[in-house]
Parts: sequence; structure tokens; C-alpha cells
Amino acid sequence: MGSREKEPLLLTPGPLTTSETVKEAMVRDWGSRDTDFIEMTARVQSRIERIAGVEDGSHVCVLLQGSGTFAVEAAITSLVPPGGKVLVLVNGAYGQRICKICDYHDRKFDVLETDENVPPDAGVIEEYLVQNENITDVIAVHCETTSGILNPISEIAQVVSHAGRRLIIDAMSSFGALPLSVQDVPCAAIIASSNKCLEGVPGIGFVIVDRGVLQETQGNSGSLALDLHDQWAGFENNGQWRFTPPTQVLSALDQALSEHEAEGGAAGRGQRYAANCSLLVAGMRALGFETYLSDNLQAPIIVTFKRPDHPKFDFDEFYERLKDRGFAIYPGKLTKADSFRMGCIGHLFEEDMSAAVEAVEQVLSEMEISL
Amino acid sequence: MGSREKEPLLLTPGPLTTSETVKEAMVRDWGSRDTDFIEMTARVQSRIERIAGVEDGSHVCVLLQGSGTFAVEAAITSLVPPGGKVLVLVNGAYGQRICKICDYHDRKFDVLETDENVPPDAGVIEEYLVQNENITDVIAVHCETTSGILNPISEIAQVVSHAGRRLIIDAMSSFGALPLSVQDVPCAAIIASSNKCLEGVPGIGFVIVDRGVLQETQGNSGSLALDLHDQWAGFENNGQWRFTPPTQVLSALDQALSEHEAEGGAAGRGQRYAANCSLLVAGMRALGFETYLSDNLQAPIIVTFKRPDHPKFDFDEFYERLKDRGFAIYPGKLTKADSFRMGCIGHLFEEDMSAAVEAVEQVLSEMEISL
Repeated sequence: MGSREKEPLLLTPGPLTTSETVKEAMVRDWGSRDTDFIEMTARVQSRIERIAGVEDGSHVCVLLQGSGTFAVEAAITSLVPPGGKVLVLVNGAYGQRICKICDYHDRKFDVLETDENVPPDAGVIEEYLVQNENITDVIAVHCETTSGILNPISEIAQVVSHAGRRLIIDAMSSFGALPLSVQDVPCAAIIASSNKCLEGVPGIGFVIVDRGVLQETQGNSGSLALDLHDQWAGFENNGQWRFTPPTQVLSALDQALSEHEAEGGAAGRGQRYAANCSLLVAGMRALGFETYLSDNLQAPIIVTFKRPDHPKFDFDEFYERLKDRGFAIYPGKLTKADSFRMGCIGHLFEEDMSAAVEAVEQVLSEMEISL
Repeated sequence: MGSREKEPLLLTPGPLTTSETVKEAMVRDWGSRDTDFIEMTARVQSRIERIAGVEDGSHVCVLLQGSGTFAVEAAITSLVPPGGKVLVLVNGAYGQRICKICDYHDRKFDVLETDENVPPDAGVIEEYLVQNENITDVIAVHCETTSGILNPISEIAQVVSHAGRRLIIDAMSSFGALPLSVQDVPCAAIIASSNKCLEGVPGIGFVIVDRGVLQETQGNSGSLALDLHDQWAGFENNGQWRFTPPTQVLSALDQALSEHEAEGGAAGRGQRYAANCSLLVAGMRALGFETYLSDNLQAPIIVTFKRPDHPKFDFDEFYERLKDRGFAIYPGKLTKADSFRMGCIGHLFEEDMSAAVEAVEQVLSEMEISL
């Protein structure tokens, strides 16, 4: 296909570049009530549970149609009881979105907000929970894609668990690449999706929920489609999705999970992404770009670069010229600083990151920009 | 791939058998913020609007991640105001599901229910609307997949329009194959999905909404992900989906819509399905099966057959033997009669239906059943 030639590598937070074998797993039709498909559904769920460190059925993976945000909303409306109160830890747009979802579902919430380059402080959370006994649930974002910052999820989990509250983790952009086990990080739920570090294609979100918590959530949800308890009951009943699943997207995810295992699970994948990230950051710094975050806060997922202070730097032109060379990057999302982003996740390897840095160098030269 | 050899033809209400070219359109990665993808989104929306007979922007197609039920729920929570009251026309499971969704979203509703083989009567609806002035919205299912019955949507639309109420049409299993134009059938919204008669793959639903109605719905929705007004505002703002779209599913739908046009649109496709249906019904009757519906009520979408009254007829065995021969059929869903279903939609042609009937004949012979 002619269009394939122009297909750029995606240096974005997702949808990502996937392997050819993942894409080819979609070239088939599946009957969604058929035994083969039911087995595939169960296999995908148990593989995801394994990545989350689930043992003895402590947690259960509930798959859901839609994007990651659908899964976040499903978790909030299904797991936070109508009379509950949420503490949302915000340092970027995805934390803000969680507040918006609480609003839609009339769940009361407080916000602990820090700047986009400042992680939440576990001591402050601990103190907040002592002072505010009515908080039932804490929601935290593991890696805030807004900046690429890594939030200290283990420390947060310790204080929330110690205070006897439920913790819901939005691990959308980190799950499958950064260490996150329910064994080490006590939590009620972890939310992620098919098309980030698992390197599937978009169309499925999922929530890995503590089984005891899930069992008590019947009737919470304000939405039928997003009712996690009902979705789970459907799977428990006959292994089937309640409503038509994206069959090809599941098949791609199944193949992607095989490839994730073959790479050595989250450890192996995280290593590749860390190497990608180091190479990208070093290369871009050598060209004169500055990262928004200091290295100790940077997750190896997506890197925010400050907009260069140069009169000839026009982002749209920079973007288009890079795309012509085969690399799609991402605009910035910071509220206070002008920036752009480059991802290091997906089916990308060190040679791809080197080629990307080389392309940036050539584009700067074409644009007559020297930093 | 070895698994391809075993892939059965899907004689189901969906997911369906799709063409090779539709499936191959998924073997590519797309950046969801990229101009190519934004153009594809707009193209798909305008093609769907054309199928619905939209002229001069009277209605707008809002695409949504998820299954068709997600789009039904989005339409109800977004279009029916919190103070509104719905009249649901029920003659099957999908009408029942609409009631359940109204319940989840605290929308008051009345039900006009008829038996699963009885279409709603426009005169009764007209009278009901006269007697119940507080009804703001009527929701009807065009083809109830439970039985395969074709409901008289034109007559319903006329009385609802005449009574000055909004009509929302669940056209999930008919859209793109049966005539349904907003020019002839006045309505506030038509709901359908990617994987029925448009012959795409599952993962996207859509609602074609009257623009004036849509403009007045801000703040109605009880869900962020399912907020049609917000989704529409996102598309209007920059052509992008608010949340990660299933990129490959959209690409498959784009290709499927090209093939739909090439076949002569809904008229051409409907003709093929009608031929499939006639052949299926005639062939099955010749083998001694009886249809649940009389021919005048049967939509050329999916056919319900009564369970044969024969001691050796075991549905599970019948199903498995047919599947071994390459045909996946569907269990029944009627509440009052034991039945099974066979679909005539998807990338299936007369020779496929003949082969299916032949396979049924062979399976009956193997099972030593003579009807």
C-alpha cells in the first residue's frame, strides 16, 4: 500500500507505533460469543493481572470498550460510592480530568494540587487524611503525561493504606513498563489501556480491581456502559462481554501481551524505554534543547522539552518538517510553560531514537536555527 | 496464518464477516492528532451523514468510542433533558435495554410494550402522546434484533413529529441497509455502529443528531465519556476526538464506507441482504424449519427460527457441527419461544447463504434429524 510508505513513527503518548505482528493479528473476524473469543478474553485478563502482580485472585482485571478515559470514568463512578468523598492528587491535565469526572457523577472531592513539575508529597497527603476523616478514596496519577513526571506511587500507597482509605491509580501511561505490583503498592484499583506501554492498538481500557472492593460496588455506577460491577458480573457469568467488544482490538492486545512477555515483561520493556529516553534526552540536549523536568522526576515515557527561545522556531513548521522525515511528535500541554513533547514508548528502539534526534538536527539546520 | 483456515463465516447480528480490504485497512498506525487522521474522521462523519440523507447540515454525525450500546446511552443521557420524560416502544431486549439506561440516568419513562412478534401501532402511540403531555421524547428500535422484526419507523416518526415530540431511533442493525433518511423520517437522532450493515469492525458507535437539538443539550449528560455535546464541541473545535480514538477501527470504517458507496449505498446493500434473506428462509423452510415471524414483519437482517420439535435436536451440538463446517450462527433471545437465529448481513453473498443451508442439511443428516 502506498500509504504505508508515508506512515511516520509515532513519538507520542499514544496511539503508538505497534509491531507488524500486532497489527496483523487484526486481519481476522471473530464471533464475540464464540468459544475461541471467550478464551481469548480470559487469557488477556489473566495476562494483565499477572503484569499487575496479582496473586491468588486478590484483584480482577475488568476489560472495557473505549479509551482509557472511559476506564477512568468507569472506575470512579463504579468504585467510589455515591456518599463517598475523593481526594484527587493533581499535577497536570489528567488529574484535572479526574476532578471533572467526579463532577459529572456528583462525587464530592477535594484537590491537593502541586505545580506541573512538582510531585505530590506523601507527608502532606498523610496529614490531609488525618485532618479529613470523610475522605474515602484517593486518586493518583502514576505518570502524568502532561509533563512526563513520575509521581511517587509507592509512598502515596503506603500512607493511604496506613490511613485505611482506598487508593485508585491512574497508571495509563506507565502500566506494563514501570514497576507497579499490587503486592508492593496496596491499592483498590489500577487503570490503564491497550494502547500505551502494552503496545496494543487503541479501543480497550481496563481496571484491575481489588476483588473485595469490587464485590461491594453493585449499584454504585451512574452509567450502564461504564458499570464495572455489571461488566465483571457478565464475564463471571459466561465469559462474555455484556456489549459488543472490539474483537480485532482484543486480538491485537492478545498478541501484544505475548510480545510483552517475550521481552521480559514490565522489567524488559521498561529497560528498553529507559534506554530510548536516555538517548533522546542526551541527543536533544546536545542540540541545545532543555528538558522541562529534572532527570530525577522524569519517567521514561514521554519527555517535555521547553520551546527554544529562538525567533525562527515555529512549532508547526518544526512538526511538519519532522513528520516529512518520518517522525510524529506531540504538542505541549503545560499550562504555564511553552513546550513540546516527544514520546519514548511504543515499538521503538534505540536506532529509532537516534534517527529521530538526527532528523531534529537536520530540521533545525533547514530552519536556520542554532541553539 | 493457520488460524485463518478455521475462521468461520459469521451468520450473526454482529460482529460480522468483513471484507479482506476492510481488515487490511487496519494494518497501519495513526497518530490521532495528525492531519491525515483528522481528515479521515471528518470524511467518515460526512459519509455517514450522507447515508442518513442529511442535507444542508440539518443533522450532524457524532462518532463515539465503544459499542453501539455506548452510543445509545450517550444519546439518552445527552439528548433527553433531566426533567424530560421518555416513551419507550418495546418489543424485544434492545427496547428493554433502553429502559435500563433511562433508569441508570434517572430519566423518567413510560413503556408501550408489544409482543416480540408484534410491531408497535402508530395509532396507539398517537393517542398515548395526546393523553400524556409530559412525554418529551419517544425512543424506538428500527429493527429489533431480538426477533429480527422490522418496526414501522416512518409511521412512528409521523405521529411523533405531528405531536411535537422528539424521536430517537435505535437503528443499530438496520442503518446502511434499510431506507432511513432524515428527509422522510423526521427525528432528533439516529443511533448505529461501525460493525453492522456498514460492514466495518466493532469499536465505534455514532449518533446522527439534529443540529438544533444538539445545540441545546449542553450540561444534560451524566457522563463525561458519553457526553455527545462535549464530543461534538471537540470535533467542531479542532476536528479531533476528545479522548483517544480507536484509530484502526476508524480506518476500517472509512474503507467500509467506500465499499458501501461502491455497492450503491443503502439501496444496493439492502438488495443484497434481501436476496440473502430470501435464499436463507426458502432453504431453511425446505428443510422443515419454521420462521418465528411472518414474512411481512421480517427485516432482511437476521432471521429467528423456531427450535425444531424433534427429540434429537440439541442446539449446542447443531451449533458446533455448523461451526466445524465454517458457519457461526447465533442463539435465540426470545423470552417466550425457544429459537435460534441466523444473520444475513455482513460480507456474505448468495453463494454463502446457499452453502450455509447446505451445511444445515448435512448437519441434520449427521444428527439423524428429519423435519
